[in-house]
Amino acid sequence: MNKKEKPWGGRFAKQPDKLAERFTASIQIDKRLYPYDIEGSIAHATMLAKQGIISSREAETINNALADIQLDLDENRFTFLASDEDIHMAIEKSLIERVGETGGKLHTGRSRNDQVTLDMRLYLRHEIVQIIGLLGELKNTFLKLAKQEIQTIMPGYTHMQKAQPVLLAHYLLAYWEMLDRDEARFTDSWKRINVMPLGSAALAGTGLPIDREYAATLLHFPALSQNSMDAVSDRDFIIEFISSSALLMMHMSRFAEDMILWSTDEFNFVEIDDAFTTGSSIMPQKKNPDVAELLRGKTARVYGHLMTLLTLMKGLPMTYNRDLQEDKEPFFDTVDTVKACLQVLNAMIQQLTFNREKMCLDAAGGFSTATDMAEYLVKKGVPFRSAHGVVGKMVSYCLKNQKELISLTIEEFQSFSAEFQQDIYRYLTVESSVNIRNITGGTSLLAVRKRIKSLQKRGREKVDVSQS
Amino acid sequence: MNKKEKPWGGRFAKQPDKLAERFTASIQIDKRLYPYDIEGSIAHATMLAKQGIISSREAETINNALADIQLDLDENRFTFLASDEDIHMAIEKSLIERVGETGGKLHTGRSRNDQVTLDMRLYLRHEIVQIIGLLGELKNTFLKLAKQEIQTIMPGYTHMQKAQPVLLAHYLLAYWEMLDRDEARFTDSWKRINVMPLGSAALAGTGLPIDREYAATLLHFPALSQNSMDAVSDRDFIIEFISSSALLMMHMSRFAEDMILWSTDEFNFVEIDDAFTTGSSIMPQKKNPDVAELLRGKTARVYGHLMTLLTLMKGLPMTYNRDLQEDKEPFFDTVDTVKACLQVLNAMIQQLTFNREKMCLDAAGGFSTATDMAEYLVKKGVPFRSAHGVVGKMVSYCLKNQKELISLTIEEFQSFSAEFQQDIYRYLTVESSVNIRNITGGTSLLAVRKRIKSLQKRGREKVDVSQS
Amino acid sequence: MNKKEKPWGGRFAKQPDKLAERFTASIQIDKRLYPYDIEGSIAHATMLAKQGIISSREAETINNALADIQLDLDENRFTFLASDEDIHMAIEKSLIERVGETGGKLHTGRSRNDQVTLDMRLYLRHEIVQIIGLLGELKNTFLKLAKQEIQTIMPGYTHMQKAQPVLLAHYLLAYWEMLDRDEARFTDSWKRINVMPLGSAALAGTGLPIDREYAATLLHFPALSQNSMDAVSDRDFIIEFISSSALLMMHMSRFAEDMILWSTDEFNFVEIDDAFTTGSSIMPQKKNPDVAELLRGKTARVYGHLMTLLTLMKGLPMTYNRDLQEDKEPFFDTVDTVKACLQVLNAMIQQLTFNREKMCLDAAGGFSTATDMAEYLVKKGVPFRSAHGVVGKMVSYCLKNQKELISLTIEEFQSFSAEFQQDIYRYLTVESSVNIRNITGGTSLLAVRKRIKSLQKRGREKVDVSQS
Amino acid sequence: MNKKEKPWGGRFAKQPDKLAERFTASIQIDKRLYPYDIEGSIAHATMLAKQGIISSREAETINNALADIQLDLDENRFTFLASDEDIHMAIEKSLIERVGETGGKLHTGRSRNDQVTLDMRLYLRHEIVQIIGLLGELKNTFLKLAKQEIQTIMPGYTHMQKAQPVLLAHYLLAYWEMLDRDEARFTDSWKRINVMPLGSAALAGTGLPIDREYAATLLHFPALSQNSMDAVSDRDFIIEFISSSALLMMHMSRFAEDMILWSTDEFNFVEIDDAFTTGSSIMPQKKNPDVAELLRGKTARVYGHLMTLLTLMKGLPMTYNRDLQEDKEPFFDTVDTVKACLQVLNAMIQQLTFNREKMCLDAAGGFSTATDMAEYLVKKGVPFRSAHGVVGKMVSYCLKNQKELISLTIEEFQSFSAEFQQDIYRYLTVESSVNIRNITGGTSLLAVRKRIKSLQKRGREKVDVSQS
Repeated sequence: MNKKEKPWGGRFAKQPDKLAERFTASIQIDKRLYPYDIEGSIAHATMLAKQGIISSREAETINNALADIQLDLDENRFTFLASDEDIHMAIEKSLIERVGETGGKLHTGRSRNDQVTLDMRLYLRHEIVQIIGLLGELKNTFLKLAKQEIQTIMPGYTHMQKAQPVLLAHYLLAYWEMLDRDEARFTDSWKRINVMPLGSAALAGTGLPIDREYAATLLHFPALSQNSMDAVSDRDFIIEFISSSALLMMHMSRFAEDMILWSTDEFNFVEIDDAFTTGSSIMPQKKNPDVAELLRGKTARVYGHLMTLLTLMKGLPMTYNRDLQEDKEPFFDTVDTVKACLQVLNAMIQQLTFNREKMCLDAAGGFSTATDMAEYLVKKGVPFRSAHGVVGKMVSYCLKNQKELISLTIEEFQSFSAEFQQDIYRYLTVESSVNIRNITGGTSLLAVRKRIKSLQKRGREKVDVSQS
Repeated sequence: MNKKEKPWGGRFAKQPDKLAERFTASIQIDKRLYPYDIEGSIAHATMLAKQGIISSREAETINNALADIQLDLDENRFTFLASDEDIHMAIEKSLIERVGETGGKLHTGRSRNDQVTLDMRLYLRHEIVQIIGLLGELKNTFLKLAKQEIQTIMPGYTHMQKAQPVLLAHYLLAYWEMLDRDEARFTDSWKRINVMPLGSAALAGTGLPIDREYAATLLHFPALSQNSMDAVSDRDFIIEFISSSALLMMHMSRFAEDMILWSTDEFNFVEIDDAFTTGSSIMPQKKNPDVAELLRGKTARVYGHLMTLLTLMKGLPMTYNRDLQEDKEPFFDTVDTVKACLQVLNAMIQQLTFNREKMCLDAAGGFSTATDMAEYLVKKGVPFRSAHGVVGKMVSYCLKNQKELISLTIEEFQSFSAEFQQDIYRYLTVESSVNIRNITGGTSLLAVRKRIKSLQKRGREKVDVSQS
Repeated sequence: MNKKEKPWGGRFAKQPDKLAERFTASIQIDKRLYPYDIEGSIAHATMLAKQGIISSREAETINNALADIQLDLDENRFTFLASDEDIHMAIEKSLIERVGETGGKLHTGRSRNDQVTLDMRLYLRHEIVQIIGLLGELKNTFLKLAKQEIQTIMPGYTHMQKAQPVLLAHYLLAYWEMLDRDEARFTDSWKRINVMPLGSAALAGTGLPIDREYAATLLHFPALSQNSMDAVSDRDFIIEFISSSALLMMHMSRFAEDMILWSTDEFNFVEIDDAFTTGSSIMPQKKNPDVAELLRGKTARVYGHLMTLLTLMKGLPMTYNRDLQEDKEPFFDTVDTVKACLQVLNAMIQQLTFNREKMCLDAAGGFSTATDMAEYLVKKGVPFRSAHGVVGKMVSYCLKNQKELISLTIEEFQSFSAEFQQDIYRYLTVESSVNIRNITGGTSLLAVRKRIKSLQKRGREKVDVSQS
Repeated sequence: MNKKEKPWGGRFAKQPDKLAERFTASIQIDKRLYPYDIEGSIAHATMLAKQGIISSREAETINNALADIQLDLDENRFTFLASDEDIHMAIEKSLIERVGETGGKLHTGRSRNDQVTLDMRLYLRHEIVQIIGLLGELKNTFLKLAKQEIQTIMPGYTHMQKAQPVLLAHYLLAYWEMLDRDEARFTDSWKRINVMPLGSAALAGTGLPIDREYAATLLHFPALSQNSMDAVSDRDFIIEFISSSALLMMHMSRFAEDMILWSTDEFNFVEIDDAFTTGSSIMPQKKNPDVAELLRGKTARVYGHLMTLLTLMKGLPMTYNRDLQEDKEPFFDTVDTVKACLQVLNAMIQQLTFNREKMCLDAAGGFSTATDMAEYLVKKGVPFRSAHGVVGKMVSYCLKNQKELISLTIEEFQSFSAEFQQDIYRYLTVESSVNIRNITGGTSLLAVRKRIKSLQKRGREKVDVSQS
């Protein structure tokens, strides 16, 4: 497009350089904002008419044409050119083509600077509700699985070494907790997203008598931005969203790691359904946990986006700088990645088959009830640190003599501490070990069952963030 | 220390390798946690006694000795060895040296895994209150400055190009808004920090009959962690804190950037007090804005810490893994950096001298009231897009003829648009330009004054987060 | 596609889940590798025939069909489906559709694991030559500009405060140095990129009697990978490339920063051509340095990609894991971004107009020759530290009395140090200050001219990396 | 310190603010540069004397005093104050205290800007030689281990699923390759580190008649920096070093991951020596691979440092800005971390005990020779893709009937493909599978043995980088 023909081209003597035009255009990226751009424009035009800045008839003309443009966009009949720069200019240009000079009245009292942040707030407001919804579904699936696996005992690990037996349900509910914090973070950010910037114009506010409160009402914003200079260069809401997303991805990556581990031949705790694995182009026997691997890998992607956004903003002078245009790809890709990961993980875990027998068998290995023995001695009055030392020596003895703790004779037990009595054998089973940990947050059947009930109750009472 | 003598050394046949001992020790880093470690231990011992797991006399012995240890630590009389591994072991070892076998009862029903996260939650709970306090002071300083500079007009910039005149007070309040969001984020995270993990033990909960609620009450925690496996490997609260800190640092970096810019000879909008600048070892005339430069630079440091923590946690299998030990340096350094930056910035800006005349003079340059002319035409019924075009041509005309808009004759005005009347000259002053933007969030004197009043009122009503 | 129909589907009982298929497909991203995939396949088939693993006729059939596929791809006649998974499978499927069972012989003795790294090495080998070429052009432009501005004196800054006068040519050549190091880093990495992995197969090498040396010759690789397990999971060459790119982007961001600064009204050192700026949708007078701002902003993007790749690889067990698929988008986008930035920067700076008068005028301000005065005293025998102190006091005196150093009387001079003589005035001009710094790497006209000559000579002797 | 007493305090009217002084001081961090600072100063004084800028006697006085200062520093008799700002000022101050006004002559013709980059180049030059040495030792240990385990067969994995049998020696040599690339990167960077910046002074070069070549000779630098403005703000050499370190850390993290995995009960491929593990404070049986976990964790730390440095430099205007001071902590910590990791990993792997029987047994599982069967069919003329399909169906058959491939009857074989003959059984052993992959880079005993020999030979011929 000839620069003289650009909507902002009045003062320019020269055409844009082709390279530069391509370099600065964001239309291929930001076109996804179109429904929000149009939603914002319709509210803006309606408000302009209410204030008498344009006539009602003009507003109607504009809004009808915007509705037509939306239809064309929805149905892929709208052609974009790099010379359109961005979605705002593309739509305004089309509007003027359709309704003539009246179309030129839409941009009254606003700037692309407040318009773009409005669009992104509307977009994120929409997407974060989807994400919170998907998070809720995933939490429910973990809860359902926990209920289903309430009897399954598995080895609990620290440092990837067997530590103590736990319920698989307890393990699964740990992810419920993580996801619940993720949900809380997204929900907390809602009030910082849901703020209307329109009226900030380029940086100083508009000089025309607009009604910001009315526009906010039309667009269902409970709050107005309070400083125009801040409003046009604030990208906190995007960075906060990506930060929360990075934590969510990290949680999913940890679960993915365990599923990959557990589906090795060596662990063999779980079988991932064929539908969530793929084969090898060369090795005919392979069944690879690709979905879980990509969940882990895609975490890196969101981390990178967070770093991009933070770096982008560092040290930028007030107010809007064109650097900000680079916020969109990492932002949009984070939304897409998070949604895809939540969906595919939710689908995948519904078709996991846990190998309960192998889990339970393994739970008994690795001297996993040694801590129970130490606690047994504590109950007999031995200081914990001494009890720990005694049991440590017994483990060392077993290792040397290739024995299990449960296979020691009572005489062997008593040679390490006179406090051991016949009842010690009751403490050495994995069931005992699990069920003795019967405190809030512990792994006993009772504690876990209680937690499940409480979460089910909470689920039924849950109110949607978008309603609040 | 001989491994056999390590508190956990029972099962080991061999001494630790010296390199490995040094490599794994965190005592030089985590020793700063000692007040929190002792606070937690005293509550733990008190609870153990209440439950009859140890006797009241034992608890008293332990707690008195812990108080002595604290005193020794406070007064730098405590010697740390790399063989002590970490602050928990160092204190337990000293306790046992002081009170003998009874000291070995303290670690009953807990693990370093729940202990360290307790310590870090107590530490962050303490520090975040300081940080929120410093943030409040800085916000107040911006507010005070805004009040003081309510009459100062400066050029507002976008793309670092002059855009429209604004009040310096409006500019300063933009930072108030950013800092207010930072405060809100820290405050929102409070409920995720303020959760008591004790009782989670190694990963599965303890098997001893402890009273978690009582311990929480002693330590003023309103909530208990609900899943032991999650609790021992949850570092979300640290990452969320560093994320919020990264945003805060970014905001300070932007202000620092402007101060550096404004104190150049070329801008000359501000003089940073001698006390916050330094000289050159070679160039005798230099006065450098080092504090502002370091504020900008230290932002990078916190970004790096965030990346470290996120990378650290990615793909870690459940539950605790030793990698987590690496959380401490970036965490502690973020706390130190954020506090130091808030303090020094607050001190520095109280001694800024704004060059009001230069600012106001510059505000009139760069055709900064061109938008006002376009809005003038809009009020006369010209569609905004056409008005923009007309004014663009006038700017181009002025550039070619080296004129200012305000120096054009009325005939020249009218040669561009018949709508221009004599009253146009009233719209071309910076005062008019500022004051016409009289909407919520706009830069007019009235709007800014109203905002200042509302913030002052809010300040008086503010309740401390630590009370809530 | 039904999993039974997947080329690797033999052992699977179930269709892939639709979500999972979309989640794992990389075809939309990796399709850009097609010319390299086909180049590699043709060499592979040729080698298989030479070894008698397939017949010459089969190789001919395969290679002709591959050439046809390339044509279809070149001319956009090739349809991709998500069920094709990736470019390798899409091409193999099309090959088999075209030539039947013979097509199934192409994948003999290789795996997608070695194939994809071959493709990416061929791709990067191609692209890095382009990038080195663009770097060379940009260096030349800086050199040309330096020659053109050899007489222009500007203020040199440290801490953004005026420090000492320098030649603009000297400033421009600083960027030549940075870009030269960038070029050296890309060139150094060449030998680590240019290694042929084919034959590594899935991870262990193939068991078929292939000739790796011959394939390498066909593909112009001077070296073979020496360990199959390493070869299939090595992404070092990509990370090294992005690291070098991050440094290059950083250099461009610094130049962009200066151009943005210099084109402010306040500095007014440079005018960026209209063709590389854009206007405002609301403010008719605006001319924004968008290209420079985006150069600065896009740096953040490449940093994010680097972080993604590093995080992706951390802690991955041997050998290939599906996480690696996530290497492509950040890699490709880095290539695109770096090339676009080099091109647009090169175009932009050829149309910069330096405001020589303003630069020279400003160079004299800010007591910029104070260091010359100190060095004057040193030559008279005053210890530097004392000389620095004397001149510092004189600057302080001038500030208080609003004088310039050059306007002081000889009596005033001598009141600060008896060593000042009439000849001091000769040292206080910007020309003297520039030209006295006549050492290698210094800013004197002679030194800079000598450097330009030496670089021009070097340019004429330069040999292309792709030849070496 | 009173600002008037600062070596640069001449022009200042006011004392530094205490907060600001502490905020800007780097002395606690950069004091480790002292040997390099003194080395540089001695060379500088020697050169000044040679040029007659100071007298020989003065140079002698200065250099003797510097030697004394070094002794005091070496023996911890030197007291640092925050008011000393940095190591350069601390040493200069002490020098002047010792020798009076003559000490004030040392800083002639230089600035802290060129001095600090000199110090860091000298420091890195020293450290990188250590690092390359440690890398060499680690490579040798891997080579030695490979020789020792040349007969050990283990399962090779892709996607953590069993893929094909490989030699443990082959696996170990994969790390040799990675470390060799790391070494090459460090070595390539040598020429960009080993450049002398002295003479660049503040930014423009000095005006005094110094001899840069002579100073370079004294300090064993083969090259001079060629542009003073670039030289004082170039931190590429540090970033390049950290980039290379990040890759090295990533490689170590991958090995650590496998060792952690392999020392689980489930894999049980390796026993890490007691000396490189630690126990649990609560679970008496635990033996945790802490060293390996921290190797993995510390990778995150170096990544963070890289991000810090890159972010720090982005968009900095020319030339030196105080932000650069923040380069030191991440730089120094990277050096320390990399060295500690190389040392401890080298020590740890020398005491690994591989469980050869378990490895070999496992190598046969998971249908790991399925690819050999497909290649068998290919040799009989079946297209690979069809062969893959046949074997895939056989694996599916075995899974359904709980059989191993090797346990199928010849009739069963032939029911899948008529091409199977009695000799197929020879191809189904892990030994056959390993040894058939006898190509360069393959896992056969012959290929691996050949590689070991070639590397041993290369090791004997290796010349040290520091000599070149």
